[in-house]
Amino acid sequence: MPTYKAPLRDIKFVMTELLEAGPQLASLPFYQDNDTADLDLITQVMEEAARFVETEVQPLNQVGDREGCVRDEHGEVKTPTGFKAAYKKFCDAGWPALDADPQYGGQGMPHLVSMTLNEMLNSASVAWGMYPGLSHGAYSALHAVGSEELKNLYLPKIVSGQWSGTMCLTEPHAGTDLGIIRTKASDNGDGTYNITGTKIFISAGEHDLTENIVHLVLARLDGSPEGTKGISLFLVPKFIPNADGSVGERNAVVCGSLEHKMGIHGNATAVLNFDQAKGWLVGEINKGMNHMFIMMNAARLGTGLQGLGLGEVSYQNALAYAKDRLQMRHEPRVLPSENADPILVHPDVRRMLLTGKAYNEAGRALAMWLALSLDVEHHHPDEAKRKEAGDLVALLTPVAKAFMTDNGFQTAVLSQQVFGGHGYIQEWGMEQFVRDARIGQIYEGTNGIQSLDLLGRKVLMDGGKKLQKLAGTLQEFAESHEDDEHIGDYVNQLGKAAQQLGSLTMVIGQKAMSGPEGADEVNAAAVDYLRFFGHVVYGYLWARMAKIAQEKIDAGQDRDGFYLSKVQTAKFYFAKLFPETKALAATIKAGNESLAVDDKAVFGWEQGLVTA
Amino acid sequence: MPTYKAPLRDIKFVMTELLEAGPQLASLPFYQDNDTADLDLITQVMEEAARFVETEVQPLNQVGDREGCVRDEHGEVKTPTGFKAAYKKFCDAGWPALDADPQYGGQGMPHLVSMTLNEMLNSASVAWGMYPGLSHGAYSALHAVGSEELKNLYLPKIVSGQWSGTMCLTEPHAGTDLGIIRTKASDNGDGTYNITGTKIFISAGEHDLTENIVHLVLARLDGSPEGTKGISLFLVPKFIPNADGSVGERNAVVCGSLEHKMGIHGNATAVLNFDQAKGWLVGEINKGMNHMFIMMNAARLGTGLQGLGLGEVSYQNALAYAKDRLQMRHEPRVLPSENADPILVHPDVRRMLLTGKAYNEAGRALAMWLALSLDVEHHHPDEAKRKEAGDLVALLTPVAKAFMTDNGFQTAVLSQQVFGGHGYIQEWGMEQFVRDARIGQIYEGTNGIQSLDLLGRKVLMDGGKKLQKLAGTLQEFAESHEDDEHIGDYVNQLGKAAQQLGSLTMVIGQKAMSGPEGADEVNAAAVDYLRFFGHVVYGYLWARMAKIAQEKIDAGQDRDGFYLSKVQTAKFYFAKLFPETKALAATIKAGNESLAVDDKAVFGWEQGLVTA
Repeated sequence: MPTYKAPLRDIKFVMTELLEAGPQLASLPFYQDNDTADLDLITQVMEEAARFVETEVQPLNQVGDREGCVRDEHGEVKTPTGFKAAYKKFCDAGWPALDADPQYGGQGMPHLVSMTLNEMLNSASVAWGMYPGLSHGAYSALHAVGSEELKNLYLPKIVSGQWSGTMCLTEPHAGTDLGIIRTKASDNGDGTYNITGTKIFISAGEHDLTENIVHLVLARLDGSPEGTKGISLFLVPKFIPNADGSVGERNAVVCGSLEHKMGIHGNATAVLNFDQAKGWLVGEINKGMNHMFIMMNAARLGTGLQGLGLGEVSYQNALAYAKDRLQMRHEPRVLPSENADPILVHPDVRRMLLTGKAYNEAGRALAMWLALSLDVEHHHPDEAKRKEAGDLVALLTPVAKAFMTDNGFQTAVLSQQVFGGHGYIQEWGMEQFVRDARIGQIYEGTNGIQSLDLLGRKVLMDGGKKLQKLAGTLQEFAESHEDDEHIGDYVNQLGKAAQQLGSLTMVIGQKAMSGPEGADEVNAAAVDYLRFFGHVVYGYLWARMAKIAQEKIDAGQDRDGFYLSKVQTAKFYFAKLFPETKALAATIKAGNESLAVDDKAVFGWEQGLVTA
Repeated sequence: MPTYKAPLRDIKFVMTELLEAGPQLASLPFYQDNDTADLDLITQVMEEAARFVETEVQPLNQVGDREGCVRDEHGEVKTPTGFKAAYKKFCDAGWPALDADPQYGGQGMPHLVSMTLNEMLNSASVAWGMYPGLSHGAYSALHAVGSEELKNLYLPKIVSGQWSGTMCLTEPHAGTDLGIIRTKASDNGDGTYNITGTKIFISAGEHDLTENIVHLVLARLDGSPEGTKGISLFLVPKFIPNADGSVGERNAVVCGSLEHKMGIHGNATAVLNFDQAKGWLVGEINKGMNHMFIMMNAARLGTGLQGLGLGEVSYQNALAYAKDRLQMRHEPRVLPSENADPILVHPDVRRMLLTGKAYNEAGRALAMWLALSLDVEHHHPDEAKRKEAGDLVALLTPVAKAFMTDNGFQTAVLSQQVFGGHGYIQEWGMEQFVRDARIGQIYEGTNGIQSLDLLGRKVLMDGGKKLQKLAGTLQEFAESHEDDEHIGDYVNQLGKAAQQLGSLTMVIGQKAMSGPEGADEVNAAAVDYLRFFGHVVYGYLWARMAKIAQEKIDAGQDRDGFYLSKVQTAKFYFAKLFPETKALAATIKAGNESLAVDDKAVFGWEQGLVTA
């Protein structure tokens, strides 16, 4: 059975040494006012979170996979053994309120803290962690754009964990393409709406953990225009609350079935049928897509953290196995008295493990950097600082989602590989990590869609401004360290890659504006571009972490080898992972030409393109 | 539910145009004598095989996954619904006998034909196909080294499919490292041996398809030396046959349990307990490892074919979905009357599909090339020709196993990705392809072990002779086509990469001999080296296929666009997949240095290395 220990030492390193979160949080009055900016307090909370997650959540992961969720004939859903009890403890300890607004019962802690809790939950059990995760997304959207009335009625219940939330977007014919959804809303004239339609793939869509479920639903109001500009966001509770907040009448939203999935069995993926269900408008009419993106952006970071969490727990278990499993003899021998040595001694096993370690630690640095940037974006007194932080979050959110889930999947697969045949057997738990990690690359916008969001929307649509800002930061760092005896080589590689990223962006940008085929050029390059971009970001973080660690070593402050580990993992990253950029540069440059094949000949597709 | 059509057109292209199998088979008296060398006959057999596989085997794949195998309290195992009936039809039609020796009831067809049948079976159902696949491995070993008595008693039953076979290698503590197995044999002095021990991960180890199961078991005879040099191969039947070939007394080998696995649920993966089971020596005492490698090499090619088969069926279903699924609008529009276009029009979707197509078609070319080489190795009248073919098979078997299963897994994952969220749902069948494809990278020697076999044993141990021979073939092709207006660019890329492969090999070879750390340098480079090697081989095959296709186009013989498809897929391969070699060259060069990290600091491994 797999085990898990929260990587508190590394989290603390990122928080205090890499991000210097102390002074940053001190500049945000919101946290000062709530007494939640103190790093000692934050560390204490993180340690408490680790204890909870390790002892209460992690033991549920394999049970959840084996049992899955079960729907009865009335559409009610039972979660796996232990899920409900752990959820009650989670709420009793106040975890759902962690970074929520004190006005609605929240604790007002920084995102930095909740992001860390999320990483841990995802290592322990993605399927379980998705229940509070979805609630948190619903909280964010409602908090940002809901009316005072809705907020006062719903937020305290969501913040306490008594009620949970969902996001209802996908329909059978509409996944990526939300502009063509068919769910309808009609105005009852009394401040309520009737919602009718079918939503699929609704995570945590029906379950027995909470007394009520608050669905946030995209629907088209009668008379609204076609496409994304005619979509509004509605709140549709499973039970309609009474004015005092108690649970009232059952609403006409029913779980029609549960999907049988590759993984995350412990989370109920529901088909929800809305049949004249009563709903309330959230935000403005026809602004539903914008409002939903508040949830989506949080959900995308959350999904990236699933990749990180699964990468971390996979790595930990593969490392333990590699120390334990004796197979083949190494020269020099490690265990001369045994007939074989631990497989950790074989370089290819080390390569697989170090790949996971390097991706995990850079991913953690990126996630926490974004979390702190979210804190600045939401609470800095200076508007320019807020915008700067917001731009960075906007730019790096698709990178965090796609790069972290791709690397998490890769790490889970490599960690499974370390186990040999035992990795394929369910009881060891490694194959579950692979199955659970696979969904992160698909949902909340496939990683292909994230790539288009990065290259098309975040980079090209503002003329590269957000990118230039980040590139400037990198350039400055590179220039001031190019002669550094320890990280000079990394910084040079990084500088070249950053420059190449700039010129590749220019080339694609020019092609994009060159005619009707421009969009195809963006589409053709996007996935490789995001991966290149991800390596530049991770390279920057690794070079910085190596620099900080080397200074500690030079100052004789590396008591337990933690800093040596950072320095050597950085070296591995630049030697073995960063060179992927060489292949990516070539495939990005190759553009759309080799993809524009003859439809009939290559794909047997008679239909093909019609000329405009 | 997934569908499958055997790619007969492409198989015929590889057979007749790329490999020119007609004249080659005509030079092999064995097939001439058996009247099995005729390409018209071969084509007819392949068409019949396609019909059988598509209608009888493919429909069992999802049932097999859902039901799995069930073991009763006596250790007997029931296969999923329909497996037994299909197996009976398979035997009645004579398929197990296809390439077997006519002396034992075989049809004496070329390996080229059975390899093709295997690809199809793996597309239809890997789990089902493994039952006859394992039998075929047992047949090969027994046929090569068994005594006349054993061969006469067992082979006709295996060839007819009445009895099946297994290979029993792995033990709980010994997977890769067979030198440390504990299963024991003691000589009864009457030509039989008593076998005692536990074997795990035995595919097709117990089932209800056949009246008897013939286990080939590695064990150490009392008094034999330690390590691989003291291992012998024994035949241990489930039921001891009577002299007339009827099934007699039950032997003391029992299925102790079945593993619960990530995939291939329809195949029984058994723990087998041998408790003084009666066995017969196969081949020579203490030569068991050598003998087993006859099976292993066949099994490794067979595993490579699992990668190919799953890649092909994944691709076919993703392509069909991409034509069908409407999502987002392309400029110019494909379906102006609909509110969205088929996703096949989006370049990133095409990239995912073309990746599968390019890997599948090159993989098929490699597999059939090796199959024909096996025919030459076994049956050419000229010893030098036999050796040359055997060397090529030896060199390329680990490449076929590892590169084809890695690419098959990648193709299954990308094809699943084309389906978006639907790819994660069991009913669509795509996630099963991913789960089933994953084992190919692990068993029959992990792909890490294949890489060591390639670089250590097949390349360096003979001073690069086998490699030089292949490189010569490539060089010759490259030089004679470097100015070709169509493939000149590919050939130049290929020539450079082939040269680079040579120099990388030299560098690793020198490091390998430079001292005690030499072995670590080989181990550190091996996986990336194999992948680089694989691209050089696929590049060679794609350039040749493009050349042949272009000639047909130029001659006005491309009626259905088949040759245009080849030319355009080759272009895609060199633009988007071959550039991976750029990253691999860098990581191979980086060697072991970045992997030789401090064990205590990085891995928390107190034990670490002891100095010699």
